[in-house]
Amino acid sequence: MIGYPNRKGGFEEKHDISYAHRGMSLEDDINATNKHYLDNDIAAIYKKPTPVTIVSVDYKSRETARITEAYFQVPSTTDYNGVYRGKYVDFEAKETHSRTSMNLNIIHPHQIKHLERVVKYGGIAFLIVRFVAYEETYFVRFEDFSFKMRSQTAKSIKREWFQEKGYLIPYRYNAPVDYLKAVDRIIDGGNVNE
Amino acid sequence: MIGYPNRKGGFEEKHDISYAHRGMSLEDDINATNKHYLDNDIAAIYKKPTPVTIVSVDYKSRETARITEAYFQVPSTTDYNGVYRGKYVDFEAKETHSRTSMNLNIIHPHQIKHLERVVKYGGIAFLIVRFVAYEETYFVRFEDFSFKMRSQTAKSIKREWFQEKGYLIPYRYNAPVDYLKAVDRIIDGGNVNE
Repeated sequence: MIGYPNRKGGFEEKHDISYAHRGMSLEDDINATNKHYLDNDIAAIYKKPTPVTIVSVDYKSRETARITEAYFQVPSTTDYNGVYRGKYVDFEAKETHSRTSMNLNIIHPHQIKHLERVVKYGGIAFLIVRFVAYEETYFVRFEDFSFKMRSQTAKSIKREWFQEKGYLIPYRYNAPVDYLKAVDRIIDGGNVNE
Repeated sequence: MIGYPNRKGGFEEKHDISYAHRGMSLEDDINATNKHYLDNDIAAIYKKPTPVTIVSVDYKSRETARITEAYFQVPSTTDYNGVYRGKYVDFEAKETHSRTSMNLNIIHPHQIKHLERVVKYGGIAFLIVRFVAYEETYFVRFEDFSFKMRSQTAKSIKREWFQEKGYLIPYRYNAPVDYLKAVDRIIDGGNVNE
């Protein structure tokens, strides 16, 4: 999982994308959006902390207990979940630097399994996928993604599929990835890509 | 927050309670219960990872990136959430070693605020409180807890209140803290303590 530790927990390497509206990562944008939802009394959706296995802690004082040895864990669930309009909402967010497709190996099998369960138990599960080269951020229902993944042998999904099946999330300054617009469509019984 | 780092992240000090059925902590019991729910296709409810601020990482190799300096954060949400019967479920679990009452300072104000939001957005919010001295584990709806907390000036809530308003969660070997029984009552429109 190349790049995994870098994408987490606030010590991310910034990519130098000169034409990005602000050069912010997808994670930064989603965090800003979730804060907007929280501050404006819309939804309570959070990024989960990065899972780490703590091996050694220096307890000189309780208040400043210092972790001196720890390792990144493979996540057993997705990064984001919460509650909106009475619904359980759960998603994973991924950036791809490919111009043509999203490599399926960037989603961990544990996360696929978890999202399958979310759907089964009545939650709303989806992916947010950004094609960095185009500054395009798509919302795709997990059901559509899962169906596509299982119906092909290729190890990637082309950008065209996201254009067809996904919802292109418009950029807004206060809510850079305003994904709840697409969730509204699901709750209200519509298609996300209309 | 005395004891906070010890209660998290798998490096907990075990308490020596000779008459506990197994000497397991509440966290261990809830994790076992959640695993039971997962394995038996009942619900997907997880403990969130312990939030840490990572300061320094040794990247000698990607696979074994080693965190060499990190600190515990004050949690902004609760420890547990997930999905069950189409509902968003969110709770905090606390042990008290007092024989008479639960001290309110063991629940962080951020967590209270978070649980208020959960209720507002249509989720199911509750606390699981264990009186270790009696091996009693109570389920209390957050609404009841919040009302009680705000209607008094005392900084603790007596065990009698939990006996009256709470649901005493029975011990089961495979699901040591089978709290979804109480959630069923809420979803089905009943009172938890009947």
